[in-house]
Amino acid sequence: MTLLATLAGDTEIEALLSDSAELDALLAVERALAEASAEAGWIRAESAAAIAAAIADFVPDWPELVAAMARDGVVVPALLRQLRQQLAEPHRDALHRGATSQDIVDTALVLRLARILDRLDSRLEGLLGRLGQLARESGDRPLIAHTRMQVALPTTWGAKLSSWSEPLVRHQSALRAMRPQLLTVQLGGPVGDRASFNGSGDAIAAGMDRRLGLGTASPWHATRDPIVGLGGRLALISGSLGKLGSDVALLTQNEVAALRLEGGGGSSAMAHKSNPVNAEVLVALARFNAGLAGTLQQAMVHEYERSGAAWTLEWLTLPQMLVTTGASLRRAETLLDQLRIA
Amino acid sequence: MTLLATLAGDTEIEALLSDSAELDALLAVERALAEASAEAGWIRAESAAAIAAAIADFVPDWPELVAAMARDGVVVPALLRQLRQQLAEPHRDALHRGATSQDIVDTALVLRLARILDRLDSRLEGLLGRLGQLARESGDRPLIAHTRMQVALPTTWGAKLSSWSEPLVRHQSALRAMRPQLLTVQLGGPVGDRASFNGSGDAIAAGMDRRLGLGTASPWHATRDPIVGLGGRLALISGSLGKLGSDVALLTQNEVAALRLEGGGGSSAMAHKSNPVNAEVLVALARFNAGLAGTLQQAMVHEYERSGAAWTLEWLTLPQMLVTTGASLRRAETLLDQLRIA
Amino acid sequence: MTLLATLAGDTEIEALLSDSAELDALLAVERALAEASAEAGWIRAESAAAIAAAIADFVPDWPELVAAMARDGVVVPALLRQLRQQLAEPHRDALHRGATSQDIVDTALVLRLARILDRLDSRLEGLLGRLGQLARESGDRPLIAHTRMQVALPTTWGAKLSSWSEPLVRHQSALRAMRPQLLTVQLGGPVGDRASFNGSGDAIAAGMDRRLGLGTASPWHATRDPIVGLGGRLALISGSLGKLGSDVALLTQNEVAALRLEGGGGSSAMAHKSNPVNAEVLVALARFNAGLAGTLQQAMVHEYERSGAAWTLEWLTLPQMLVTTGASLRRAETLLDQLRIA
Amino acid sequence: MTLLATLAGDTEIEALLSDSAELDALLAVERALAEASAEAGWIRAESAAAIAAAIADFVPDWPELVAAMARDGVVVPALLRQLRQQLAEPHRDALHRGATSQDIVDTALVLRLARILDRLDSRLEGLLGRLGQLARESGDRPLIAHTRMQVALPTTWGAKLSSWSEPLVRHQSALRAMRPQLLTVQLGGPVGDRASFNGSGDAIAAGMDRRLGLGTASPWHATRDPIVGLGGRLALISGSLGKLGSDVALLTQNEVAALRLEGGGGSSAMAHKSNPVNAEVLVALARFNAGLAGTLQQAMVHEYERSGAAWTLEWLTLPQMLVTTGASLRRAETLLDQLRIA
Repeated sequence: MTLLATLAGDTEIEALLSDSAELDALLAVERALAEASAEAGWIRAESAAAIAAAIADFVPDWPELVAAMARDGVVVPALLRQLRQQLAEPHRDALHRGATSQDIVDTALVLRLARILDRLDSRLEGLLGRLGQLARESGDRPLIAHTRMQVALPTTWGAKLSSWSEPLVRHQSALRAMRPQLLTVQLGGPVGDRASFNGSGDAIAAGMDRRLGLGTASPWHATRDPIVGLGGRLALISGSLGKLGSDVALLTQNEVAALRLEGGGGSSAMAHKSNPVNAEVLVALARFNAGLAGTLQQAMVHEYERSGAAWTLEWLTLPQMLVTTGASLRRAETLLDQLRIA
Repeated sequence: MTLLATLAGDTEIEALLSDSAELDALLAVERALAEASAEAGWIRAESAAAIAAAIADFVPDWPELVAAMARDGVVVPALLRQLRQQLAEPHRDALHRGATSQDIVDTALVLRLARILDRLDSRLEGLLGRLGQLARESGDRPLIAHTRMQVALPTTWGAKLSSWSEPLVRHQSALRAMRPQLLTVQLGGPVGDRASFNGSGDAIAAGMDRRLGLGTASPWHATRDPIVGLGGRLALISGSLGKLGSDVALLTQNEVAALRLEGGGGSSAMAHKSNPVNAEVLVALARFNAGLAGTLQQAMVHEYERSGAAWTLEWLTLPQMLVTTGASLRRAETLLDQLRIA
Repeated sequence: MTLLATLAGDTEIEALLSDSAELDALLAVERALAEASAEAGWIRAESAAAIAAAIADFVPDWPELVAAMARDGVVVPALLRQLRQQLAEPHRDALHRGATSQDIVDTALVLRLARILDRLDSRLEGLLGRLGQLARESGDRPLIAHTRMQVALPTTWGAKLSSWSEPLVRHQSALRAMRPQLLTVQLGGPVGDRASFNGSGDAIAAGMDRRLGLGTASPWHATRDPIVGLGGRLALISGSLGKLGSDVALLTQNEVAALRLEGGGGSSAMAHKSNPVNAEVLVALARFNAGLAGTLQQAMVHEYERSGAAWTLEWLTLPQMLVTTGASLRRAETLLDQLRIA
Repeated sequence: MTLLATLAGDTEIEALLSDSAELDALLAVERALAEASAEAGWIRAESAAAIAAAIADFVPDWPELVAAMARDGVVVPALLRQLRQQLAEPHRDALHRGATSQDIVDTALVLRLARILDRLDSRLEGLLGRLGQLARESGDRPLIAHTRMQVALPTTWGAKLSSWSEPLVRHQSALRAMRPQLLTVQLGGPVGDRASFNGSGDAIAAGMDRRLGLGTASPWHATRDPIVGLGGRLALISGSLGKLGSDVALLTQNEVAALRLEGGGGSSAMAHKSNPVNAEVLVALARFNAGLAGTLQQAMVHEYERSGAAWTLEWLTLPQMLVTTGASLRRAETLLDQLRIA
């Protein structure tokens, strides 16, 4: 739905969450697993080399992957079958040896989260830059404050702009602070205890961490608090921007007219109107992400060593939250560019 | 994201919600508006004919529509500009005369909802047929009931199957019962009071209803309870199917083994496994739709005569709920086909 | 928390949901069960009389009930132990014969729901009366409409008032329409199939229905769509009133001043302010109830023949939703009394 | 509702959230404000002493406070009126000088949050102690792991217990880490910019911080991310315990029997049953808190300098989340005491 995506989508982040980006990440993880396994003596170096070569040349049979996803609920088993067809017999068992699908899928997610967090960070930086400039230019200008929807007392634009930027500073620092716990290799084997690696699991995980630029953690197949915690922060980001959007929509009311927007949205029936479209979209995205944050929290109740239900629920919510947050940041950027203090 | 869509998507319903289906519906509504307006003497018959002809031949400039959507928050103003370029001068004002973007967008939604509800109805019918057949075949077979996750007492498969089918009967009848209130033309004009039609509004709305096969209602720009109520019913449907999925996942546990699945999902690490993928996906879809139902309820707080924020929030949630419900019904169908009573 | 309850509570509805109202209802259900069982020949008439007498004289040992609730997760087993101590030996087995705790708890809920729905209905009636009077008095007065937070065109107070009242008419009629499906006796026995009544279950259920003034249904231990559907409607009611509150908060802005409130809230710092407290509370209650509606939907995924988890989740949400809806209706009533059209 | 509170309440935390605890905290904040104001030269030392004395002797007129809460939407204006009656004329203006209701209410909340976080911390500590002991006693014992609801491979109780305890370690450390940003004095004055303190605001805030044992922050009237972020963490805690509860409910299934519970719940109909009540309640509390976390996120969209609607929504959700989290921790403690590894 391209039309709606102009309001709520984010092509850059969507690209990092696409099937093909996922496939690339899955392959990168299998390769890092093979190399770390060779280093730890868990598979032979020749096998790791063969696996790396097969991955480098790999061309997926997408229709088969899609069909297998529908059957298996996860794409890795079919992907491994296709990859193994590219491997000489002695190396086939070395591929994915000791690992489970979730190891690969979760680590591949984390790899892309690292890149997405980079983008969110730099967009927050960009917004903070714009807000800082507005504060330098107009921080001393007067503004009538409102509380409980009523005129209160005079304040300054500086105070208003601080209330917009301070939460963003906290969000940026929180996103950075959560990286060590969030951006870690998943390596647990079939039941999440690394027993399938016969004592080499920790060494292999450490080797993967190093190769993939990730942190270290025990397996987290069924303990999703870092993932769900990320979702909470994403909703806070879009929430803060929703507050900014709500303020702008209120301040640009014709009767209040403390702000004007360059390039507001047009109407099919009323030519005189300049609608605060970006401001309203920020509110909508905030409310949408808020709801998704609650839904993602439902995925904490993870049955046994791996819940297909809870894991799938994560897939249904987290990517949307990343896109929604990205879209909020983009829309806020545009909105700040449109702002004219009256 | 094609991979995830194999679990959670629904190509048939997505097609009815696509941009191109929306465009077709928007055009159909403008045409019905023009014809009904001519009939009511609000525009000239020649204008209505010219509009119908322009619509029949219309080829959209998609890039411009997309760009305008980003600016206006709604696609109709740009669509009208494009359409007007295809109209001779005397007819341009007759196009969309008295109406507002929301009239067209909401009615176009309703047109597609009518078709989606048809599909949900027939899928419910299909599930009920399968459940009925299972009941005829195996209703008398014994089953150990469980309450509070503990073995309780013997019951029959007939009782279990009734607990799966009875809610579906209620959902089917509720979906049918809500059609008259839900599937109505939106026609309010700029501020939702039909004043812009100068007394002809009711007649035009009635003419549109008749042409589009919809019911009659006062304008509902800012009163969204029928829409949000539909969302609640959709979540109930996927919720009932989530209950079915949860039961199947529990009954197919190896230790319980009251059910077996033909063609369960495979694992990358444990060849012996047959995972109840469809059952788990039904639970995930139920929880996802449940959360969306709560988010959609937030769109009830609609500011003034039209809230861009609340309306956009609807767009972000309702289509997903329709697809999720459609996917639930499809997955349940597949799951029932896989069921083998042990 | 009495203070917060002045904003968000509802003493009348809370009273119907209190422990003591629940106990009364549980006892009424056990009595109706006994009498209907005697009528159906399932227990002796003397036993039913003895049970009715014991119930009439019953004084609960509350501390024991509370302690048992913590242990059993449901109060009925302990209540039956206490009741049986008041019964002569030959009648003890007749009490609750064939039934399960959930039969009693659910039917006792429904009994109180019937009374709560009556109150909601009459409050909706009261609001509609006030809105009708306002329309008669001021329907012709002009009002500037706003769309997307911008001044649009003139409309009338009549149109505004219709947008407030029409959804309430639909809610009232929906609450009435759902009674036959919602207000039904629960009678399933331990595993919800009435097998424990040895063929007399349908007759006993019918006898209970008649005595309790309820409708007829198959057991619904694990199929909660009528209950969850009620929750959805409650959120729609508070949602419509949240829209009304949002409109009032916007229209009473000093800069807009289309409305004035008699007796708005005071501020500790700004003596000149008159805060639209009731309007804001309506918005808060709408958002709260919207969220609870989504949470209640999660209770649709009911494991097996009875899920302690899902059932408890209902208890945590539905009563709050009833109170929140009741509070919304009360607050709206007060707010309408405060309204002065400028 | 005492009965339900045995499952979902927490008397210790409820006491800290009671009206009387709130009143005590409000008074403590007014006193600290007066003393810090005197120290900063903003009011006279005699006034601060008089205010402290009046607060020490203060006996509230509760009915008036309750009535005023309903009118003003916040209790502080009426509380100040009552307090001022206890003050000699020259000191009346010194009370609350420069401050606004929200300064007092938010700081009073934070004071109690500090104590509640202490309790959550020590309960987490207690759970971790129990889990550590279980791991020492039984960590080497075998357990059949399950993935996607199917038997997978053998693992150990040590791995299972780690998956329960590791998230709790993270939660404990996250709760500690958020204190400096969360537990800060609110001091903004009527419109949140400290302008009402005429340059003394920062010094007064610092003096209050020191007296109340809180941290320093700019005013946060309308920027609620630390509060809403706390809510997210609370849901993660109950979510992790919900996962523990779900595991226990699954492992105590009669057919699985990897665990047994001492003192499970009884049934009114089936004497043989031992229901995993605490396990199920943990799941219900997790789902309830998850939903509330999403609802609380909606309060991020805070209009202007103070939104009565968003602030009230916080009051409706956060206290419940604190209680729900407290109840989860208590229930988990009891459940761990009941566990017997089979």
